[in-house]
Amino acid sequence: MTAALQTQARALAAREESCRVLGGFWKAKQDMIRLTALPYQWRALNDEIPGAEPSRAIGNFRIAAGEAGGESTGTVFQDSEVYKWLEAASRCLELSPDPGLEARVDEVIRLVAKAQRPDGYLNSYFTVVAPGQRWTNLAWGHELYGAGHLIEAAVAHNRATGSKSLLGVAERFARHIDDTFGPEEGKIHGACGHPEIELALFRLWRLTRNPRYRNLATYFVEQRGRDPDAFASDDALGQTIPEAPWRRPDYFVAQAPVRELRGAEGHAVRAVYLYAAMADECAETGDPELAAALGRLWDSAVGARMYVTGGLGSQAEGERFSVDHDLPSGRAYTETCAAIGFIFWAHRMSALFGDARYGDALERSLYNGALSGISAEGTRYFYVNPLELQPAVARARHDHKHVKLQRVEWFGCSCCPPNIARLVSSIGDYAYLTRGATVVVDHYLESAASFELPSGALRLTQHTDYPWSGAIGLDLALDGESRFSLALRIPGWCDSFRCSVNGEPAATLPDASGYLSLERLWRDGDRVELELDMPVRFLSDDPRIAELAGKVALQRGPLVYCVEQIDNGPDLHSLVLDPSREASAEFDPALLGGSVRISAIGFREEAAADGDGSRPAAAPYHGLREDAPTRSPVTVSALPYHLWGNRQPGAEMRVWLRRA
Amino acid sequence: MTAALQTQARALAAREESCRVLGGFWKAKQDMIRLTALPYQWRALNDEIPGAEPSRAIGNFRIAAGEAGGESTGTVFQDSEVYKWLEAASRCLELSPDPGLEARVDEVIRLVAKAQRPDGYLNSYFTVVAPGQRWTNLAWGHELYGAGHLIEAAVAHNRATGSKSLLGVAERFARHIDDTFGPEEGKIHGACGHPEIELALFRLWRLTRNPRYRNLATYFVEQRGRDPDAFASDDALGQTIPEAPWRRPDYFVAQAPVRELRGAEGHAVRAVYLYAAMADECAETGDPELAAALGRLWDSAVGARMYVTGGLGSQAEGERFSVDHDLPSGRAYTETCAAIGFIFWAHRMSALFGDARYGDALERSLYNGALSGISAEGTRYFYVNPLELQPAVARARHDHKHVKLQRVEWFGCSCCPPNIARLVSSIGDYAYLTRGATVVVDHYLESAASFELPSGALRLTQHTDYPWSGAIGLDLALDGESRFSLALRIPGWCDSFRCSVNGEPAATLPDASGYLSLERLWRDGDRVELELDMPVRFLSDDPRIAELAGKVALQRGPLVYCVEQIDNGPDLHSLVLDPSREASAEFDPALLGGSVRISAIGFREEAAADGDGSRPAAAPYHGLREDAPTRSPVTVSALPYHLWGNRQPGAEMRVWLRRA
Repeated sequence: MTAALQTQARALAAREESCRVLGGFWKAKQDMIRLTALPYQWRALNDEIPGAEPSRAIGNFRIAAGEAGGESTGTVFQDSEVYKWLEAASRCLELSPDPGLEARVDEVIRLVAKAQRPDGYLNSYFTVVAPGQRWTNLAWGHELYGAGHLIEAAVAHNRATGSKSLLGVAERFARHIDDTFGPEEGKIHGACGHPEIELALFRLWRLTRNPRYRNLATYFVEQRGRDPDAFASDDALGQTIPEAPWRRPDYFVAQAPVRELRGAEGHAVRAVYLYAAMADECAETGDPELAAALGRLWDSAVGARMYVTGGLGSQAEGERFSVDHDLPSGRAYTETCAAIGFIFWAHRMSALFGDARYGDALERSLYNGALSGISAEGTRYFYVNPLELQPAVARARHDHKHVKLQRVEWFGCSCCPPNIARLVSSIGDYAYLTRGATVVVDHYLESAASFELPSGALRLTQHTDYPWSGAIGLDLALDGESRFSLALRIPGWCDSFRCSVNGEPAATLPDASGYLSLERLWRDGDRVELELDMPVRFLSDDPRIAELAGKVALQRGPLVYCVEQIDNGPDLHSLVLDPSREASAEFDPALLGGSVRISAIGFREEAAADGDGSRPAAAPYHGLREDAPTRSPVTVSALPYHLWGNRQPGAEMRVWLRRA
Repeated sequence: MTAALQTQARALAAREESCRVLGGFWKAKQDMIRLTALPYQWRALNDEIPGAEPSRAIGNFRIAAGEAGGESTGTVFQDSEVYKWLEAASRCLELSPDPGLEARVDEVIRLVAKAQRPDGYLNSYFTVVAPGQRWTNLAWGHELYGAGHLIEAAVAHNRATGSKSLLGVAERFARHIDDTFGPEEGKIHGACGHPEIELALFRLWRLTRNPRYRNLATYFVEQRGRDPDAFASDDALGQTIPEAPWRRPDYFVAQAPVRELRGAEGHAVRAVYLYAAMADECAETGDPELAAALGRLWDSAVGARMYVTGGLGSQAEGERFSVDHDLPSGRAYTETCAAIGFIFWAHRMSALFGDARYGDALERSLYNGALSGISAEGTRYFYVNPLELQPAVARARHDHKHVKLQRVEWFGCSCCPPNIARLVSSIGDYAYLTRGATVVVDHYLESAASFELPSGALRLTQHTDYPWSGAIGLDLALDGESRFSLALRIPGWCDSFRCSVNGEPAATLPDASGYLSLERLWRDGDRVELELDMPVRFLSDDPRIAELAGKVALQRGPLVYCVEQIDNGPDLHSLVLDPSREASAEFDPALLGGSVRISAIGFREEAAADGDGSRPAAAPYHGLREDAPTRSPVTVSALPYHLWGNRQPGAEMRVWLRRA
């Protein structure tokens, strides 16, 4: 019960502190979201992208608001895509004034407000298509899920603008929900098939400090899994749900009450959204049972069911977790939203339990499995993020039908594109935590932040080219002297580092939690320098993952690498890496806006030539081929996994290569 | 067009010559079929196996014959299972008198005859369930498919007993079909969704020499693929057929007229049954276009889409071929019936084209992917024959749902069990061919055969312990002297051999077709001895098969080997074979009735121990593990693939292991 004890010690103490991204890797990504992705997504939500699957999302609101005729179409949860866009747009407004964007946001808010019913209810599908069916299908209706995204958007909008235009709408709906759901007689006893409302209500509670929202969030978390038949519906509103796994409680992460959950099961996105809300609740209460459950779920999800890219969900059917160590590369599901939801959860775990491993796992998902969901330009998206693409196989095989050969314009269910937009635009929330008189530097990004510490105000400026480089500088601005602790996360991938304060060597060993703790009387103008060595790592397979036996992956800093056909020719499975030879890393300014490329030594195996030098006969086993293949030395060129598929869509890609 | 020229030279010349199996490997298998499998299958067809999926097949005939009430149930092609059983039983009667079995066969024939309609039509489903729908659903009705199996059973019964009791029934139905189908106006223009009638009619023609049957067979072969919409039905008689691939022409191998087929596509069993009929037609006509098509299909199926076990069909959805070199081990479909159908085809190709590679491929399927479909005892069956079983993965994953963890009692669609019974009981048909004055010894089995050669009669006795040993003795009994040629197939796996006649060294090099040709004036009592060396082979992966990169398989003689958990412990993926170390083979009389076991040198990789000797932490990538795994030397124990799953059902198995 170490985790529980940690909780008791630390619960309520760690607070998220936002920072302003000023440059480097993340500034470029945020600019891409603000300048390219958000305008593009607006067009997608308005069905203006030629050739893309239509969204209908804005159109549905127009119909629900009475400003247009016609029939509402698209998935039942389509509203949520508008809310996620609103959230991302609000975060962008916070980053940078943009009158055009602000006007567009205000117009959408006006439309959303107009679509709200007099009693506070708000959902375009159940207003237009199925007005008599409100709250009748908690398994598939996604009404509370939509409400959650509305609330998150409203909190972000209020924070960015101070306006209550959307917050008022969200609170009216939240109060309506609170009047409708709960343990009291006459209310509906139930939770949503897709968790989201829970973490949103905790967010609303933290903004408003209205305990109704905290209590309702807790109710939804605790209600889940208490009725095994709650979600056993075959009616997904216009679509008949086949048998397993979609009618099984574990698909909905409702196989047991949350305190009794034992492992990461079911639909991966549903699961991590719920786990994030459990962490929110645990942060409120410090409940040791909840803490223990979170510890078990973490060990299961991260310890046995996560890809090296931080992707979650290795089964396409049900978009769900499989058994331990079943992590096929080519058939991975690893939905972008699952990586994003995992980041939400991991961030809360870091705040809750104060161990560097949560930040380590967060950056694994962030820099790899989440960012891979969006193209370098910002206008093409992956829903599924495999670790290997053999195009001919992916085209031909039914068991790869979920795999797209390239990022696409939009999806009929386009949960991922606006989700990655809101993640990137809010990345400043992840860098810092404060825990009493400790400022935790959990993630490294060029930024400025201000803190109110018990000992006074601190303004912290961080300079870094992370993740391309491990050099980090922290400039402290104080009003005089102040005693507090700076806790710098030393990433799990980092074996050696140097730290100095004002040029003098400082602490050399991280504490048991994986943080380098610098406690002292700080003075205005102090400068901390941290140099994390970032050699290329040959990451061994986990011997329990059968498919990876004998393979290695390349990692440098938090970035997992992959090899692509465009750099290495076809038949990537023929490449073999030699970890005994040093690999080199070089920043290539021409590579997709500037990226570090890895060159590693290895060889390519090819069929032993026949006597006459020709390739072997067509029949693979007909004449037995006993000669080992011939080996030609090659330099393997790798690029960050999240950048794959940007230069030659539909070509081969591979993360795991054979080890010599 | 070499193939076409070969055809012109050889068509009509090679004749199947049956032999009587007298001992050794195949006598034991035939005894198992006759004494155990057939009585067991009889119980299964009568729904007397507790816990097994019911067959209803005999019951349906009783209802159709008016001897029982109730509703006919089971699949629409259930009759065919009775016919295949009848065929196997007839072949067993030919091998060995068995009054009890004969009485049972006669009783079934009486029942079948009674179920026949006055016009010759015979099908229990369309008689009882859907009497108005005869011939209305060629895609899924399987009426002609059933007729084909009836005909094959009738030919076998006539051959075994001389009786026309079943042959009369079959011929009446065949004539009815000929009156119904054909190019003439007023007849139905079409073929069956599942090929089978074609090769059966060619068989009936060869027995009766009635040209109606040959012409009708040719019509069905040639009609196929001429109407692209012929099989685009969604109505599989009580079951709605979803979209692709089941409504696509290639599923039915009807994407083009047979002469224009370019590669092995579609449902694997349908494909190889059709290819066998195409070879039958080609043997009748020597048609060079058909020969060329057969050559292309062979190169595609065997050269690029066949497993090392001779299994065909690597996609579960549609039980079909995939693209070239897409041969996943764990998700293989490789239906037992596809291997059996391939054997039918390969045997005809050998007769047609006279090249040893056809016999080579035949024995690859026969000794591996076909025989694996039946348990050592004869009462448990695989429909799907994967090359690797990870039980936890197979249980958990949707993309493995077709994989059974162990052989089962029976299937709702039980095409495979009686199919393997008729194959094993007819194995004597495969050993010999005659081509003019040449006796081709295509397969090695302890047997006696008689031939009428141009130069006189020959009685040939073959003594061998094949496939356990490569020593083959042939004793010739002649009435005086006779000049002819003995052509002994030198298997593709065999690098070195010795041959002697009466103790004197004879020919040392096979001809260009892969046969060792012994042409001389033979005398009564001559003895030929052939010694095929049978070392253990480490078979390299085909470098075009991505999944097999860096792996080896063990083969000895025609037998492909596998490793099982019971002999090698769990985590078979951790085993690495060292092909530079000699492997040994030893006959183990206690291993499933006596089998050669292979012992090979290698090692087991395990996670590098942490500093304190413990296993690594739960998180696979959390703390980067860069140390190569530790290696402990092991002796890997392998057994013939076809015997897997007989001792510890549901445990791990693997054909391809990593190469050191």
